Amino acid sequence: MNAVIISVGDELVTGQCVDTNSAWLSEQLTAHGVDVVCHITLGDDVERIKEAVGEALGWSRLVLITGGLGPTPDDVTRYGIAAAIGKPLEESSTALEQIRALFARWERDMPESNRVQAQIPTGGSVVSNPRGSAPGIRLQQAGAHLFALPGVPSEMKAMFEAAVVPVFINQVRTAHCTKAARIHCFGMSEAKLGEILVDLMARGRNPSVGTTASEGILTVRVVARGVNEAEAVQLLEEDVAEVRSRLGHIVFGVGEDSLQQVVAALLLRQGKTVATAESCTGGMLARRFTDIPGSSAYFLRGYVTYANKAKTELLGIPPSDLDDHGAVSEVVAQAMAAGCRAEAGADFALSTTGIAGPGGGNPPEKPVGLVFVGLADCDGVQVRRFLMGEHISRAGIRDRTCKWALNMLRLKLLDSGL
Amino acid sequence: MNAVIISVGDELVTGQCVDTNSAWLSEQLTAHGVDVVCHITLGDDVERIKEAVGEALGWSRLVLITGGLGPTPDDVTRYGIAAAIGKPLEESSTALEQIRALFARWERDMPESNRVQAQIPTGGSVVSNPRGSAPGIRLQQAGAHLFALPGVPSEMKAMFEAAVVPVFINQVRTAHCTKAARIHCFGMSEAKLGEILVDLMARGRNPSVGTTASEGILTVRVVARGVNEAEAVQLLEEDVAEVRSRLGHIVFGVGEDSLQQVVAALLLRQGKTVATAESCTGGMLARRFTDIPGSSAYFLRGYVTYANKAKTELLGIPPSDLDDHGAVSEVVAQAMAAGCRAEAGADFALSTTGIAGPGGGNPPEKPVGLVFVGLADCDGVQVRRFLMGEHISRAGIRDRTCKWALNMLRLKLLDSGL
Repeated sequence: MNAVIISVGDELVTGQCVDTNSAWLSEQLTAHGVDVVCHITLGDDVERIKEAVGEALGWSRLVLITGGLGPTPDDVTRYGIAAAIGKPLEESSTALEQIRALFARWERDMPESNRVQAQIPTGGSVVSNPRGSAPGIRLQQAGAHLFALPGVPSEMKAMFEAAVVPVFINQVRTAHCTKAARIHCFGMSEAKLGEILVDLMARGRNPSVGTTASEGILTVRVVARGVNEAEAVQLLEEDVAEVRSRLGHIVFGVGEDSLQQVVAALLLRQGKTVATAESCTGGMLARRFTDIPGSSAYFLRGYVTYANKAKTELLGIPPSDLDDHGAVSEVVAQAMAAGCRAEAGADFALSTTGIAGPGGGNPPEKPVGLVFVGLADCDGVQVRRFLMGEHISRAGIRDRTCKWALNMLRLKLLDSGL
Repeated sequence: MNAVIISVGDELVTGQCVDTNSAWLSEQLTAHGVDVVCHITLGDDVERIKEAVGEALGWSRLVLITGGLGPTPDDVTRYGIAAAIGKPLEESSTALEQIRALFARWERDMPESNRVQAQIPTGGSVVSNPRGSAPGIRLQQAGAHLFALPGVPSEMKAMFEAAVVPVFINQVRTAHCTKAARIHCFGMSEAKLGEILVDLMARGRNPSVGTTASEGILTVRVVARGVNEAEAVQLLEEDVAEVRSRLGHIVFGVGEDSLQQVVAALLLRQGKTVATAESCTGGMLARRFTDIPGSSAYFLRGYVTYANKAKTELLGIPPSDLDDHGAVSEVVAQAMAAGCRAEAGADFALSTTGIAGPGGGNPPEKPVGLVFVGLADCDGVQVRRFLMGEHISRAGIRDRTCKWALNMLRLKLLDSGL
């Protein structure tokens, strides 16, 4: 049971846009036990689309295409598919009606340019798109199923769930079952982690275990195969338990968990509140807390005290501290966290101050990448100093600072929750 | 002059990670006049890597591979390449020395597991990696050049610039030259934009003109080909000027410009300052201002007044306004912007309040997706009401709210700058 994902768009092969659709589709398909063999990304070129689609239909059970179904002249996916299967395009009255109905709902006339979106290859059928003007295309060729969906992620995802899953996934049951898990870690190097897990990562082992590093987060992937779901689940759970027990508190979550979600869940469970006082992260930390629906239950307020005047007026940092130690200092991180906690009346306050660069560094005492993170609670304030390497960008320094702050609060909540 | 980019990693074909390397490499290559024919993404599988590399070497001048050069057992790219060219792997003393030197700089011993990273196919050479423990591999096969680089973006990028550009790009001059531009727009539908530009978007035209939509931003791509650089540049500039003149203030920038960068540049040029008061966007707007190096010149402070108490205490919103109209209301958006401007002593203040969902909606008066954005300046406060469709996620609602806020300030600054 294998699949090929083909993404189409000049903006992809010229690098003006990152293809996120293929990753999303792969994750869905893997979870359904379908083995994604490869992604192929092509420009808006009829010949190349024709070749790739023709080849993929020859050896794969599922060919999923995204992109190039729009109303503008550069959208040529439908022509490539028609050429690959040697059938002409014809206007589908079903598709045309759906497009017209959508514009009616928007209280607008359908521009004539949208009419081309109703054309599908003879023998194909229409995949409804309730969210946009590009209906999808579905067809079968010998043993292969082909679905072409629009490139707009929200439309593509809804159509995958409404059409591809029921038609393909649920029809075609496989002889084995695959179950996958991801375990997310923070605060260890990838090589060190690899050494701790080396026996589990042996090639050819079932489950397979691998690691990836992305922006300070290490992820351990476990993929188990069984003759049925029960076996796959059991194998998976044994490995996940083993990985967790070897790594301890380094593990912060699984699957879609983010550091902020895990911290949010701990705050909610313990009925605690938090506030933030940010300098170098400039709102990024507050944003991570408020990314989460329902965050008003534990997130009280945030101060973005970028200017020194704001630090003094809003958090009560004595100007003498700023003069004597500089804004990027342990003393100021401590005062920011304490001031924020007192002003907000929160159980915890996190503060960040650092040099995110690229300018503003003053080595050796205060190089770019130097950051102080403060955590205030009822017992006082702890401040940690971090120094990030020169290869980390401004965005990376801000990101990592938020992660260190969230992780300090996570470990504190784990301790106090015991 | 064509290229294939091959990305390797189970985390990619199982969708646990989005491949951003291929887009970055494509952008670089396109700018250098190299035509990227396709991206191919594969799992950590020796056979599949062997096949894809072998095939690509047969018809492409440049094969760029990323990923799978790490120290853990799931990293098998080197075996796939060796198999594709039919050569054994051997330990490179140059590579081993580089790895050892790196660990020495980190003041750590080299774990034995890193030693495998020094193995390269016979006949190949080492591409130095100053930032990490995975040296790259370079080799030539008939007319094709192959480079294998690590998957960690910061390492890959540095190595591309240090090794691929001088060795390949500058050696192999092409008979034609390609120049590309992107023009970014906000505040118009894609179909409407397509109608305005329809003649420029005719298939086969040079320059080629296409549009893409991503998270509320519409981008017009123009790619011009000429027999030399001067011709390509001239063709490109003519089209860019034509597009800009047709679209007017809908165009906010080009290339890497973001809305926040454009607004920041306008603020700097006019010597103006800004502060933010955020409810539904929870720090995201402040974060966008402070994303930019040097933002302390115009960004004074941000309030994340998530709780009503914070709105009252920090911005002076009368509790009666909150009671009578609710936090998500024109009255409160207005008071937040005015209070923020006064407290911060800024020239401009932006406020956001809305229902980002998925919970908390109260239709028909206050559905999820209802947002008010306030902009205060010396003349008073303007408030705009936005209602986003139900298909937009919480993250999308917060993102679009920031963009509308930035765009309101951009248009105000353009007006006042005249």
